[in-house]
Amino acid sequence: MPAAKLPDPITSLQNPQVKRLVRLRNRRERERDGLLLIEGARELMRAESAGVRVDELFVCPELFSPEAHDLFPDLGGATPLSRAAFEKVSGRENPDGVLGVAPLPAPRLPQPGSDALVVVLHGLEKPGNVGAILRTADAAGAAGVLVLGRGADPYGPNVIRASQGSVFSVPTAVLDEPQALAWLAEQSFRTVACTPDAPADYWDTPLTGRVALLLGAEHAGLPAEWRTAHQSVRVPMHGQADSLNVATAAALVLYEALRQRRGGGV
Amino acid sequence: MPAAKLPDPITSLQNPQVKRLVRLRNRRERERDGLLLIEGARELMRAESAGVRVDELFVCPELFSPEAHDLFPDLGGATPLSRAAFEKVSGRENPDGVLGVAPLPAPRLPQPGSDALVVVLHGLEKPGNVGAILRTADAAGAAGVLVLGRGADPYGPNVIRASQGSVFSVPTAVLDEPQALAWLAEQSFRTVACTPDAPADYWDTPLTGRVALLLGAEHAGLPAEWRTAHQSVRVPMHGQADSLNVATAAALVLYEALRQRRGGGV
Repeated sequence: MPAAKLPDPITSLQNPQVKRLVRLRNRRERERDGLLLIEGARELMRAESAGVRVDELFVCPELFSPEAHDLFPDLGGATPLSRAAFEKVSGRENPDGVLGVAPLPAPRLPQPGSDALVVVLHGLEKPGNVGAILRTADAAGAAGVLVLGRGADPYGPNVIRASQGSVFSVPTAVLDEPQALAWLAEQSFRTVACTPDAPADYWDTPLTGRVALLLGAEHAGLPAEWRTAHQSVRVPMHGQADSLNVATAAALVLYEALRQRRGGGV
Repeated sequence: MPAAKLPDPITSLQNPQVKRLVRLRNRRERERDGLLLIEGARELMRAESAGVRVDELFVCPELFSPEAHDLFPDLGGATPLSRAAFEKVSGRENPDGVLGVAPLPAPRLPQPGSDALVVVLHGLEKPGNVGAILRTADAAGAAGVLVLGRGADPYGPNVIRASQGSVFSVPTAVLDEPQALAWLAEQSFRTVACTPDAPADYWDTPLTGRVALLLGAEHAGLPAEWRTAHQSVRVPMHGQADSLNVATAAALVLYEALRQRRGGGV
């Protein structure tokens, strides 16, 4: 019975540990302390298997999902919280009772192979979109994701969740624009901007070799200077809607690049 | 000044109209009354341009987004609600102050052309996924979406929102399985199941002619009887994650079908 190993739970919502976890829900606080919060059994396992060192674990066994029970059979060293305290520190509607604190990963630049695919996000605001793109980048075997401009924090709780923890397995770097441009040029990436006003459909564009796919914010799109990419591609639209979701567009172009890599022609 | 045309707003949270709108947030109540709620300026415009008759309009000009201001310059006939009353009936964190009530659309079966693409959803639970698939089906020019089994209501507020109103422009029908199977057979659709254990990658499978893409629930996948599709395809995975989001998989297969239709070979 793992519960037997646990000390008495923290019940006070004014407890300094509880207040600190609530404080770490704020991006600036996380960056100042160099820490991140990882909530959810699956996300924590993904982080740990990607080598993230989870220094502190907070649990509320009463809230455990079946997955949390399976993944965390041994709670030695964990700090138990009462249900009310856990719900206060959780960012979820239905928390699964597992929350970790880990050091903020250092920016990781991809180690690009000759056929590397990199995704460059510029100012994407919605955590759900950034997370979905990270998850797809992982599935597509992309070499990494560069996050530029003001936008969703890739290490924010909602991105971690939407990425299902892929933010830990895909090399991810928050960079400023000049850094990113310099690195892409130095590594001889061909930049391919995905934008609705591009002249060519993505499936008519060669996407082999080192390709950096540039994606702009949900409404604003790519800034003008990023339109001077080597190529621009669009996803053709046939319906009433005027746009595709940016994460959907990212998936289409990434997988078309994979299709071409395994020998499918343009 | 549109506000001058409006009667005094409803302020009481116990007002019968307010209570009725709250009640209509429940699927069973909507189905019993044959009504649906459409929240948001963009979603309402999309519904109206698809021919949906919005019989009642509730507004809170104080909450209007710039888009709501632009799209609803004339509020004649609308019922104003106080901010508190609107927030009570709204399903959103940041409502834009526009909410309509319309008759529940009759199920619309697609009128399939010789090259029609139809999406068949089986028991998808997450409104965000159903909405994203509807939005992508619209962009891909799919002939329609069939919704089977217990799962998210395609006319639920969260699906409408995630689809950005595409549920009104794409022919959508909630059917039971025998009906759907009979219709697909009668119309000579080739059924293509998308499932992780399929033997062939989607891009190696011919997807021209009338194709019905079958997608199963997020965790359970397709039920066994649906695996007896004409073909099964999978999306190849190269990363740590064990699955792609179902809406992402749908987009990849739909757009591969389009690519093949415009002459791209397998």
